[in-house]
Amino acid sequence: MATPSSTTDPVGRFLSRRRDWSANNVVGFMMKQAVDHPECISLAAGLVDPQTLPIEATSRAVERMLSDPTLARAGLQYETTEGAQRLRDLLLEYLAGLEGVTADAVGLKIDRDQLVLSTGSQQMLALLCEATLDPGDICLIADPTYYVMLGTVNGQGARAVPIESDADGMRIDSLERTLAALDAEGQLQRVKMIYVVSDFDNPRSVSLATDRRRRLVEIVTELSGQQRILIVEDAAYRELYYDGVSRPSVWSFDEEGETVALVQTFSKCFSPGLRVGFGILPRDLVGPVLDLKGNQDFGSTSFSQHLLATVLEDGLFASHVDHLRDAYVVKRDALTEAAAVHLGDVEGVEWLVPDGGLYVWLTVPEHVDAGFDGALFNRAVQQEQVMYVPGDLCHIGVDGVRPRNQLRLSFGVENSERLADGMARLARAIRAEL
Amino acid sequence: MATPSSTTDPVGRFLSRRRDWSANNVVGFMMKQAVDHPECISLAAGLVDPQTLPIEATSRAVERMLSDPTLARAGLQYETTEGAQRLRDLLLEYLAGLEGVTADAVGLKIDRDQLVLSTGSQQMLALLCEATLDPGDICLIADPTYYVMLGTVNGQGARAVPIESDADGMRIDSLERTLAALDAEGQLQRVKMIYVVSDFDNPRSVSLATDRRRRLVEIVTELSGQQRILIVEDAAYRELYYDGVSRPSVWSFDEEGETVALVQTFSKCFSPGLRVGFGILPRDLVGPVLDLKGNQDFGSTSFSQHLLATVLEDGLFASHVDHLRDAYVVKRDALTEAAAVHLGDVEGVEWLVPDGGLYVWLTVPEHVDAGFDGALFNRAVQQEQVMYVPGDLCHIGVDGVRPRNQLRLSFGVENSERLADGMARLARAIRAEL
Repeated sequence: MATPSSTTDPVGRFLSRRRDWSANNVVGFMMKQAVDHPECISLAAGLVDPQTLPIEATSRAVERMLSDPTLARAGLQYETTEGAQRLRDLLLEYLAGLEGVTADAVGLKIDRDQLVLSTGSQQMLALLCEATLDPGDICLIADPTYYVMLGTVNGQGARAVPIESDADGMRIDSLERTLAALDAEGQLQRVKMIYVVSDFDNPRSVSLATDRRRRLVEIVTELSGQQRILIVEDAAYRELYYDGVSRPSVWSFDEEGETVALVQTFSKCFSPGLRVGFGILPRDLVGPVLDLKGNQDFGSTSFSQHLLATVLEDGLFASHVDHLRDAYVVKRDALTEAAAVHLGDVEGVEWLVPDGGLYVWLTVPEHVDAGFDGALFNRAVQQEQVMYVPGDLCHIGVDGVRPRNQLRLSFGVENSERLADGMARLARAIRAEL
Repeated sequence: MATPSSTTDPVGRFLSRRRDWSANNVVGFMMKQAVDHPECISLAAGLVDPQTLPIEATSRAVERMLSDPTLARAGLQYETTEGAQRLRDLLLEYLAGLEGVTADAVGLKIDRDQLVLSTGSQQMLALLCEATLDPGDICLIADPTYYVMLGTVNGQGARAVPIESDADGMRIDSLERTLAALDAEGQLQRVKMIYVVSDFDNPRSVSLATDRRRRLVEIVTELSGQQRILIVEDAAYRELYYDGVSRPSVWSFDEEGETVALVQTFSKCFSPGLRVGFGILPRDLVGPVLDLKGNQDFGSTSFSQHLLATVLEDGLFASHVDHLRDAYVVKRDALTEAAAVHLGDVEGVEWLVPDGGLYVWLTVPEHVDAGFDGALFNRAVQQEQVMYVPGDLCHIGVDGVRPRNQLRLSFGVENSERLADGMARLARAIRAEL
C-alpha cells in the first residue's frame, strides 16, 4: 500500500519534464491574488469590460442560430479540427477588410485552408510553439512582453531571449545584434521563432512602427537560406485603436507567405468567453498544427464558432467594436488624467498614454520595488486596496535580473470612476514609498 | 530571398520532434475519406445522431442564461483555467449520482478542486499524457482501443504497449504478464500510465468487468511503492447503457484517491459541439494539469460551461439522456438485426451485440483484408457506397503487425433505415470478398 512517504519518491519520477517546464504559472498566481483580495480596485485584471460584453448581439445571433435546425445542429455537433468552414470563410473576408485587400487569392494571397481556428489566440500561440520549438530552442521576444507567452515558450523547454524595445516596439538594431551574437556563439540554428505583439501590446500598449514591420520580415527572409525562423505576430488588440487608424500587419509584408504566422482573437474585440481565435499560417505549418491540435482536442467548440459566424453574418460585429472603442477611450482618459493629477509632479514617475489597447505602463523611480513581494505592492493592496500587475513579470530578464520599478495598469475592467479612484489610491501608495 | 530549394532543408530542422511524433493523424485521414465520399452511408463516423442533438434544451437554457445579466456576463467573460465553479459544483452532484454516493467529502471523498474542466474529454486525456509521459515512457492500453488516444500517447514520444482484451475488457492476466515482462527488461520505471475505456469502449462497446476494475486498482496500488502508475479511466460512454444498469467506476475502487484519473465528457450524452469534458484528478496532479492547460489555452469556453450548467440546473439533462438511450437502442437493433439477416449464415463472420455505446465490432475471416488499402474497403466505398472504420486502426500492433480482418461499425449518425441498408450493402461487399 502507498504511504505518504513511499509515494513521495515515485512522484518525483512520475511527472514529465514538460510538467516541470510548465510549473510556476504566473496567471494562476495572479488570479489567486485577485480572489484573495476582492475588496481591491483592480488595475491588474486583463479582462475586458463586463459592461461592454455583447449580451444583446449574442442573444440575437443565438436566437437565429437555434431557430434554424441546420445551424443549430452544426453548433451542437462535432466540427473539424481546423474549425467551421462557414466561420473561416467569413474570417477571410473580415481579415481582408482589416488588410484593405480583397478576400481572394489575389488580395490575401492565401489558400482558405491556411486559416485555422483555435481556442482563443492562446491555443494557436501554443500550437505554433509546439510545432517548432524543441527543448533548448530559442524564441526572440520584444521585452517586456505578454507573460503568458513566456510560460508557453518555457513550457516547451525552450528559451526566450529578450530584444530591446522602445516606444516604437521591438528595436531592429537590438534584433540584429542579438542574431549576430547568437550566430557567433553557434546558436543561430536554435532560433526558431520571433514573437511580436504588433498592435498596442501587452503590457505597454506600444505598437511596432510600420518601417520596423517591413524590416523585421526582410531580416528573417534574408536569413532563411541559413536558418528558417517563424515570425509569430500576435494581433490580439488589433481592433482596439482609439486615436487613429490601424497599421498594416507584419504579415502583410511577407510576400512569399512562408515567414509570418498571424494570430488574432475575438476575445478582446467581442467576447473572451467564446474563446475563438485564429491563425493565418504558412502553408507548410497547417498540417503540423492540425496534427497537434487533433491530438489535443480534435477541434474547438463548434457552438462558439457558429455563434460568432452568425454575429458576423448578421452585421452585429462592427457596431459592437465601435461601441467598444468609444467606451475604452473614456476609460483610458479617466485613468491617464488621474495619473496626471496625482503623479504629474513626481520626479521619476512616467507613463505612456496609449492610442489603443487596454494597458498603461507606469515607471516609478528605480529604488521603488514594485514586485509582488515588494513594499509598494503590499502597501497598495493592504492599505490602499488597489491592485496592479508588477512589471517584472513581463520581463524576460537577463541572468535572472528584471527591472522591478514598473507597473502594468489596465483600464479594462473597472469603470471610469473607479479607475480614477484606483489611480488616486495607487498614487498615494507610490508617494509613500518615495 | 528564399527559393523553394533553399527552404526545403531548413524546414527539416525547423519543425519540432513533437510535430514528428504527432504526424499521421488518423482522424484527419478518416475525415478526408468522409468528405471525399459524401454519397456513402456512414457506418464510420463516431459522431452522435444529429436528430438527437438537444436543440430544444439548449434553446431554453440559453434563453434563461442570456436574460440574466450576471449569467450572461459570466458566459461571455474569461473563466478560470479550471473552469466555472458553478458548473464544477453541479458536476460533483452529477458524478455523485452516477456513483450512488453523496456529493461531499464523505461520499465522493474528494476536494472540489479535484474536478477540472477541459475542451471535451480529449483535452483532459492529452493533458494527463503531457503531465506524466516523457519521450520513451510507456502507456499500457487494452487492445484494440480508441485510436485518437494512440495518437496522443505517440505525440509525447511515448510508447503504447498492448494488453489483451476479451468480452470483459482488459485481461488482468495479460496485464500482469506484461508488467512482469517489462520489469524483467528493466522497463517498469518507464510505465507511467494504464489507459482503459471502462464502459462500452471504442471500438468494441465492451465494458470492463467489475471484478477486473477492482483488481486493476489493486495491482497498481500494490506496485506503487516501486513505480507510480496512473490509471486513466475514460468513461466517455458511461451514460449510454441500454440493457442494464451502469457499473461502478474504476475510480470508485481507488480508496486513496492517488491512482485513478476519471475522465468524462458531455459530448456523447448531450452535445459534442459544446466541448465540455472533465477529469477527477489525484490531488497532486491538479496543479500540473492546470499549469499545462494555462499555457495551452488558459481556460476552455466559458459560454459552453455556463450553458451546460444552466441545462443541469433547469433539469433539462436527465430527460435528454433517457431520450438518447431510447433512440440508440432502436438504431443498435436495426444494425445488428440486419447483420443477422445478411451475415448470420456466413462462417467466420462474427459480431458483438453491445449493451451500450455506439459501436458494433465485426470480425470477418482472416483472409479478408478490411484495411483502408484493402479490397473490402475499396469495394464497400466504391461499389456499395458504405463506409466503415478499418479495425486495424484501433490496434496498437505487435512489431507493426495488426489484425486486418475487423471492422468498427457505428450506429451513431445514420437513421435505422439507412443503418439496415448500409449493413445490407456491407454484407454484399463482404460476401463478394469471401
